Amino acid sequence: MTPSTTASPHASSHAFTEAERHGVYRAIAERRDMRHFCGGQVAPELLQRLLLAAHHAPSVGFMQPWRFIRITDTALRQRLHAVVERERQCTADALGERGAEFMRLKVEGLLDCAELLAVVLADGRERHVFGRRTMPHMDLASTACAIQNLWLAARAEGLGMGWVSLFDPVELGQVLGVPSGAEPVALLCLGPVTGFYDQPMLQQLQWASREALPKLVFDNAWGLASDLFATTPSHSKGHS
Amino acid sequence: MTPSTTASPHASSHAFTEAERHGVYRAIAERRDMRHFCGGQVAPELLQRLLLAAHHAPSVGFMQPWRFIRITDTALRQRLHAVVERERQCTADALGERGAEFMRLKVEGLLDCAELLAVVLADGRERHVFGRRTMPHMDLASTACAIQNLWLAARAEGLGMGWVSLFDPVELGQVLGVPSGAEPVALLCLGPVTGFYDQPMLQQLQWASREALPKLVFDNAWGLASDLFATTPSHSKGHS
Repeated sequence: MTPSTTASPHASSHAFTEAERHGVYRAIAERRDMRHFCGGQVAPELLQRLLLAAHHAPSVGFMQPWRFIRITDTALRQRLHAVVERERQCTADALGERGAEFMRLKVEGLLDCAELLAVVLADGRERHVFGRRTMPHMDLASTACAIQNLWLAARAEGLGMGWVSLFDPVELGQVLGVPSGAEPVALLCLGPVTGFYDQPMLQQLQWASREALPKLVFDNAWGLASDLFATTPSHSKGHS
Repeated sequence: MTPSTTASPHASSHAFTEAERHGVYRAIAERRDMRHFCGGQVAPELLQRLLLAAHHAPSVGFMQPWRFIRITDTALRQRLHAVVERERQCTADALGERGAEFMRLKVEGLLDCAELLAVVLADGRERHVFGRRTMPHMDLASTACAIQNLWLAARAEGLGMGWVSLFDPVELGQVLGVPSGAEPVALLCLGPVTGFYDQPMLQQLQWASREALPKLVFDNAWGLASDLFATTPSHSKGHS
């Protein structure tokens, strides 16, 4: 990623200081989906601060659909791990020829992380029509923004986080007692780590590699390469 | 939001410097869903940097489902505005008794912003099973994280952004020529603003108000108030 500390044009007097901007870009570049944790604890004040960062996400029509369930019961954590483990096996079967490779990956840190949080879309969301009449799934989009806020703040605080979506949401909802209409969307593993992956773990292990950004940007219609990258190929990689 | 510059426990030697952390929390706290823009331009290098920030989002199975269409054609921008305006009317009708109040809100800045970007989920996503077998909508969650990255980086650069979801995604896909299986999820208005709202605009105008965070956090099961907030009511508000 282009460092934000290089001289660059600023369109606005509302820009942050160089150190603040650097913090934002550093969090974005160095955040990782972590699966390796080293136990420990997250201080209550710190966890509050991270949840408050999540709560300051944008939401469609300001509906704030996110709910958080903090897992403090050890037996419950074991049950949730079993739910994830079942889906891990089902995913391996569904992957066919890559199933064995998938089973060798560490895909979650539920038993090792300091804090485990379930994120659930609240019930009663059908009341919120603003920005959702044709796109009801915008509630998930808002909640994902909240999770990304939490993730970036955690990275700045030196904590790792992983978003686990390997579960049957109906089964998870039953385990957590969520009401009809509410919908689990994430298990977040959060806590101290011995280190952060230099690159996304799935890239390090050659499961997948980062696309070149210019391939993903079009001008005015799908498939028309953008002029934005025509003259500056040095910006096109984007590895961090 | 609790300032990150106050003394606070740090669990890890991986924590950022105080100024960097402050930048992250400041971006999270001061980011707004903007609808008021003042024209101007976004320098190409800056727009590249923002798109690269988006591209460094997490994605389920590292699938990187996001695609960006930059609207540089004025007539196309007008067509997109008409698509949004139609949905705005339909939404007002669907809102019933709040319809008139809704129509008085400024809900988009498509014609005033310096840059207009459509964000589209790529076609061919059914190939990606990792983390999506039971939760196929995780591709949208990943793309929302990318948009949140862009939003926070834009705020740090002093630029405003608004996420518009008032459109029929099928109609928008036709206008932009997206292939079968691809799916528009956002129109992003981006660019210089004269100022940022002190609070979310929908809160300022009393459309909705921010929930108290402790009401949204449970311990171990839905509905059980979390002990996390039992002793520190001063942290419970979270206005910024």
